[in-house]
Amino acid sequence: MTRYALAVEYDGSGFSGWQRLSKLGAPEADVPRSVQAALEAALQGVANAPVDTVCAGRTDAGVHGLSQVVHFDSDALRDPRAWTLGVTGHLPPQVAALWCQPVADDFNARFSAVARRYRYRIVNRITRPGFQRRFLSWERRPLDTDAMHEAAQALLGERDFSAFRSSQCQATHAWRNLQWLQVRRQHQQVIVDVQANAFLHHMVRNLVGSLMMVGSGERDAQWLHEVMESKDRTLAGPTAPPNGLSFIGPLYPAQWGLPPDVTWTDQIADGFAFA
Amino acid sequence: MTRYALAVEYDGSGFSGWQRLSKLGAPEADVPRSVQAALEAALQGVANAPVDTVCAGRTDAGVHGLSQVVHFDSDALRDPRAWTLGVTGHLPPQVAALWCQPVADDFNARFSAVARRYRYRIVNRITRPGFQRRFLSWERRPLDTDAMHEAAQALLGERDFSAFRSSQCQATHAWRNLQWLQVRRQHQQVIVDVQANAFLHHMVRNLVGSLMMVGSGERDAQWLHEVMESKDRTLAGPTAPPNGLSFIGPLYPAQWGLPPDVTWTDQIADGFAFA
Repeated sequence: MTRYALAVEYDGSGFSGWQRLSKLGAPEADVPRSVQAALEAALQGVANAPVDTVCAGRTDAGVHGLSQVVHFDSDALRDPRAWTLGVTGHLPPQVAALWCQPVADDFNARFSAVARRYRYRIVNRITRPGFQRRFLSWERRPLDTDAMHEAAQALLGERDFSAFRSSQCQATHAWRNLQWLQVRRQHQQVIVDVQANAFLHHMVRNLVGSLMMVGSGERDAQWLHEVMESKDRTLAGPTAPPNGLSFIGPLYPAQWGLPPDVTWTDQIADGFAFA
Repeated sequence: MTRYALAVEYDGSGFSGWQRLSKLGAPEADVPRSVQAALEAALQGVANAPVDTVCAGRTDAGVHGLSQVVHFDSDALRDPRAWTLGVTGHLPPQVAALWCQPVADDFNARFSAVARRYRYRIVNRITRPGFQRRFLSWERRPLDTDAMHEAAQALLGERDFSAFRSSQCQATHAWRNLQWLQVRRQHQQVIVDVQANAFLHHMVRNLVGSLMMVGSGERDAQWLHEVMESKDRTLAGPTAPPNGLSFIGPLYPAQWGLPPDVTWTDQIADGFAFA
């Protein structure tokens, strides 16, 4: 058995989310389909045997992935390029493999990741988006991105994010280390880039929903601070819609020898560099 | 009668192109539908009367628009905001109005424009795009963007672009003033930004097709120069596919008082600023 790490990108619009809903195998049992089911079917097509995957970060229905990383084990003798091309050939058009490489047996796409990055994009104008609408959220009230950015800085660090956690969240505790949160304007778009060691269920979308209340002037930085301290989900803003959200990808320590895009460095430039 | 200028953005994927195929009105006569037909139907919905539009730059099937500008005449008493919101409410989800404002009677969206801008985006890696695939072209061979950029600079200026003109092009002559052409890499994407006073049919896609032959090393800058001098379309590279192309929009002299995005200035920063 060889363990492989493999990265995929996907347009999450038509999927039920990352996670396979059923292991029973019949495609009918999994409609709309999950990204994981599509990927495992493609891997099986290359390996000629069932393949299970573990991913770095599960995404909800409608959320996109830019460098989602999985690991899997296989006896199939394929070189990395053949895995990448072969899997992509078996994937639906909304999903593509980016790279694949053998890794040490103790690499785990989920537990070896030391950080995850997400980007949330909001079109901020009086009319809804037409171009790229599946990759954008929309807010018609003008958003003050400076106010959003400044308020957000008070949330950085190792904290209890219970106030921004979905009621369905299954994590054992709500302490997460929020390492970076940048809000900026690019023409008519508001872009929120966020990095943490790990995220709770709906944490990014809940943070964005509350930051939008600060940006619209409905609430202020003090309120955001109080919501955080309250640890009470009912006090926070609404959950922002999924389509504006992309999982940029995980970061791993350099020891694993993975590509630069998913390798931890202490430097974060002006937002995350990605295509 | 008041003349209005109106800007729209659209995802061109599901459309037959900009131009209305028929004036007979029955939707069945226009399948797949044109963006122009969808826009004129929406304007009619707001104006309660038929509305004809003239656009700044017609786009082909599958090509997108970010600030397409049209003019139209109407007796309907609506303020600019009501036009923008009302038209968007009547448009299909792939199209949205950006702004609308009254203009002088001698403004013409096509003839008053002094320049047009296009962007072409290519994913350059071994596997096809999954995320945002309708807005990206794909080239698996590595492209040397510096070589493409340098070769392209020899095409700038007022020249005869016959070699890059579609055989269906209806323009009376092939002289165009190519004002700017920048090729750059952004992570896995190659981005070609181009500005001219006007473009011939397929001119951007033909230029990109030839530049990609330079970028892949199949041809060199001297070849591109010779193609240009030959004025012979059969010597140039293939027409690049439509889905990588977006019409960023036209530019008008400041006298018309239109928004900054579509107003001519002598300055072009590092590529065109747009969302």
